[in-house]
Amino acid sequence: MALLNELIIIDDKAGVSVYLQITNLFIHHIRQGRLRKGLKLPGSRELAGMLGINRMTVVAAYQELEAQGWIEMLPKKGTFIKATLPLLSPKALAGDVADFQLPAQPGFIYDKKRIIPVGSSNLPSAGKLAFNDGFPDVRLAPIEELTRCMRSLSRLSANKKYLLYGDAQGTLLLRRTLANFLCDTRGLSITAENILITNGAQMGIFIAASVIISPGDAVIVGVPGYNMANMTFQQLGAKLIYVPVDEEGIDTNAIEKLCEKKKIRMVYVIPHHHNPTTVTLSPERRMHLLSLATKYRFSVIEDDYDYDFHYSSKPIMPMASYDSQGNVIYIGTLTKTFAPAVRLGFIVAPKEFIQTGTNFRKIVDTQGDSLLENAIAELYKDGTIVRHIKKSVKLYKERRDHFCDCLQKELSDQVSFKVPDGGMSVWTTSLQHDLKVIARKAFDRGLIMKDGTSYDIGRQRFNAVRLGFASLNFKEQLQAVKIIKEVTAM
Amino acid sequence: MALLNELIIIDDKAGVSVYLQITNLFIHHIRQGRLRKGLKLPGSRELAGMLGINRMTVVAAYQELEAQGWIEMLPKKGTFIKATLPLLSPKALAGDVADFQLPAQPGFIYDKKRIIPVGSSNLPSAGKLAFNDGFPDVRLAPIEELTRCMRSLSRLSANKKYLLYGDAQGTLLLRRTLANFLCDTRGLSITAENILITNGAQMGIFIAASVIISPGDAVIVGVPGYNMANMTFQQLGAKLIYVPVDEEGIDTNAIEKLCEKKKIRMVYVIPHHHNPTTVTLSPERRMHLLSLATKYRFSVIEDDYDYDFHYSSKPIMPMASYDSQGNVIYIGTLTKTFAPAVRLGFIVAPKEFIQTGTNFRKIVDTQGDSLLENAIAELYKDGTIVRHIKKSVKLYKERRDHFCDCLQKELSDQVSFKVPDGGMSVWTTSLQHDLKVIARKAFDRGLIMKDGTSYDIGRQRFNAVRLGFASLNFKEQLQAVKIIKEVTAM
Repeated sequence: MALLNELIIIDDKAGVSVYLQITNLFIHHIRQGRLRKGLKLPGSRELAGMLGINRMTVVAAYQELEAQGWIEMLPKKGTFIKATLPLLSPKALAGDVADFQLPAQPGFIYDKKRIIPVGSSNLPSAGKLAFNDGFPDVRLAPIEELTRCMRSLSRLSANKKYLLYGDAQGTLLLRRTLANFLCDTRGLSITAENILITNGAQMGIFIAASVIISPGDAVIVGVPGYNMANMTFQQLGAKLIYVPVDEEGIDTNAIEKLCEKKKIRMVYVIPHHHNPTTVTLSPERRMHLLSLATKYRFSVIEDDYDYDFHYSSKPIMPMASYDSQGNVIYIGTLTKTFAPAVRLGFIVAPKEFIQTGTNFRKIVDTQGDSLLENAIAELYKDGTIVRHIKKSVKLYKERRDHFCDCLQKELSDQVSFKVPDGGMSVWTTSLQHDLKVIARKAFDRGLIMKDGTSYDIGRQRFNAVRLGFASLNFKEQLQAVKIIKEVTAM
Repeated sequence: MALLNELIIIDDKAGVSVYLQITNLFIHHIRQGRLRKGLKLPGSRELAGMLGINRMTVVAAYQELEAQGWIEMLPKKGTFIKATLPLLSPKALAGDVADFQLPAQPGFIYDKKRIIPVGSSNLPSAGKLAFNDGFPDVRLAPIEELTRCMRSLSRLSANKKYLLYGDAQGTLLLRRTLANFLCDTRGLSITAENILITNGAQMGIFIAASVIISPGDAVIVGVPGYNMANMTFQQLGAKLIYVPVDEEGIDTNAIEKLCEKKKIRMVYVIPHHHNPTTVTLSPERRMHLLSLATKYRFSVIEDDYDYDFHYSSKPIMPMASYDSQGNVIYIGTLTKTFAPAVRLGFIVAPKEFIQTGTNFRKIVDTQGDSLLENAIAELYKDGTIVRHIKKSVKLYKERRDHFCDCLQKELSDQVSFKVPDGGMSVWTTSLQHDLKVIARKAFDRGLIMKDGTSYDIGRQRFNAVRLGFASLNFKEQLQAVKIIKEVTAM
């Protein structure tokens, strides 16, 4: 039994209660085979003496081990490691059934074309050189702050209540905090009841569109445009009407002409750093669009996915901040602030709309992750998020400038582009070569990039692509641009 | 300047790098007003001397503070706290606009009845005495283990890649781990390609039904049944056909008769601890249902929301473990294992179906939380989850027995019930009083419970309710039962 002395070593500084340490060490050594099945363990008094601790601590550990099924305490016999260790083993449904492989196709009949094939997102593995679609550098994300905060929230017993079902609209703490933040930074005069928390901007688009669109409804989108949004509306049965996007954003005169002819249910716009072209919708067109929405009573989805990342003087306020009529559904996300994997976005809209959207969210997935929501709220409140935004904006501005310099120096005869005012990518048009060829050859040299075909609508081809610069440092940027230079020189 | 000595105090044991400690202390004191705007700071060499640290550490802190916008370093002049502190302040869209309140209703036209009003979930605040619908005791949830695991994963630089967009199907690590667990515990012969990770079982139901159901399709559900699933199918346009649930589960003979008459697209069943009645679908009916699915080529949604929580000998294997034809879509969740707020569930199905479901998930919300997914995988692998299940099953069995004893002793003339084989609630029929009255009076005495009306279909009334016992300890159970006794004696 002297062995136990060596196996069960208590760490006073571990921050874990001693009885749990003992429990976990026993389990560990049982699993490792160092403590064999059927072994008789010392009594609690004896073990307490060996370890120099209070007997009740050993009693608590033994009770825990028994509850978990690792040991058994037999009256008058003592305490033993169980012969059958904890493992679930269910009862068979019928007699022996020969092993089978689940078939690749379902046996039942269903319409395989009901769901639009979104396709793989062409998103590169980390560690590889890649131009993504304009994502932040996840190496900088304050993710440790976030998980530390989640951890400390989880340790507060008062916070156990957040583990129950909560508010499908999002925790009140986060909605209140976000309402203040959006008021301060975007001039939105809203309260917590105007916010629905979502799993990222995509769920915001999906929920808003699900509430608004009935099959057959006409929805106006820009060309070129954001393909995922377009597919979402199509999945919901919308008929898309394409309107050109130029240097000042989507053409509101074209929208006006369409409204005169037919009923428009929704207009989807990305007024800030438009995806894909990065252009900003001009103040005049914003006001024009709002007046059209009021006149023709259509909804405007204002997708403001990276408002916080603006480099040239100040950003233009969102349309939602001037929407006294309640025609704008404003959508935002923390994807660019934290990281794509932190699934948190929001819808801002009139209260009635938020309530309907909340109802729909219950059908989609009941509610969000309240622990995550409250941790994010804390990071807004203690300034972590604002500091991170400040810091990232400064860095990404330098990266934008450096990247545009590289493009200018190395590829000025091959591409045209405009320096974006904000966001994390440069809309780059290939002047001489087919981007499909460039992307394929670049891939062979270790650079992953899109070929731009997802922006094409019908016969309209752009031969242009978003080159995300924010997640590449100077050295990586130069390396990537040089690869494109090599393949275009071939 | 001696003041800085007192404000910037470095803690060698803090586990945070010294430069970050200095940075954070500066920010803290600037925000508190102790270090005023415009204040000139000592040079890096001087401050390093004052604090007794390396000069490069101070340089790093100053650079961080500058990047975040708290200080400015002016060439030849020195380092100053900035006059304008970090705060985002955007440019107005137009001239002055009078303040307005966002209207409660949207200005645009939309069909307000498109979304089924799910209603509030009638879920009690923590800390109040309540019979919930059969949820685990969140006070026991291994949530600290989960957040600790997330925290340590977030600190591994190699794991930063999980912060990028990842696999919408769920991380490969979790799907592989879960495939093994489901094979061991449920006899499912599957691989990682047969699994789609979802935000809880509800998203599993929503995605599976969205892939299968076209508007007008006939879907069979049990009576009484699980209202959220029914509403999900209705929202998607299904026509519900109600089939009775008796002591052996859903009546498969009735299903057969329906199949002979009309095209059935889907049958929704909860074979284990049926919601709400807690009955188990008998092995004979399981085999019958599978043979009907093969003959009539309909899909079976097998909602197995609390398989792991079974108290009477061994659980019956899921139908999915015998489904060599690929007709069963199996849905599970960690809601009962962890807590409702940990949003993790899964769909098991033939590969083609999982791929289509994954496509749809991209439209719904792009993907799940990969950090959470990998942390859960780790807790499966290190045995934490299995141990917690073992422990909970033991405790909930005791709570079930105690609760049924209480019901028997205190309310045998008022209610009828059957001791459930598993799960976390007792389906309790009120013999004499209207449950609506009981629930209202109980509420006045501090006990929250449902009134059972959500189970009523048309003219069929059950006057029965699920009383969740698992989250109440013995004392709370007795207290709650006594309140019901009081109000029924009135």
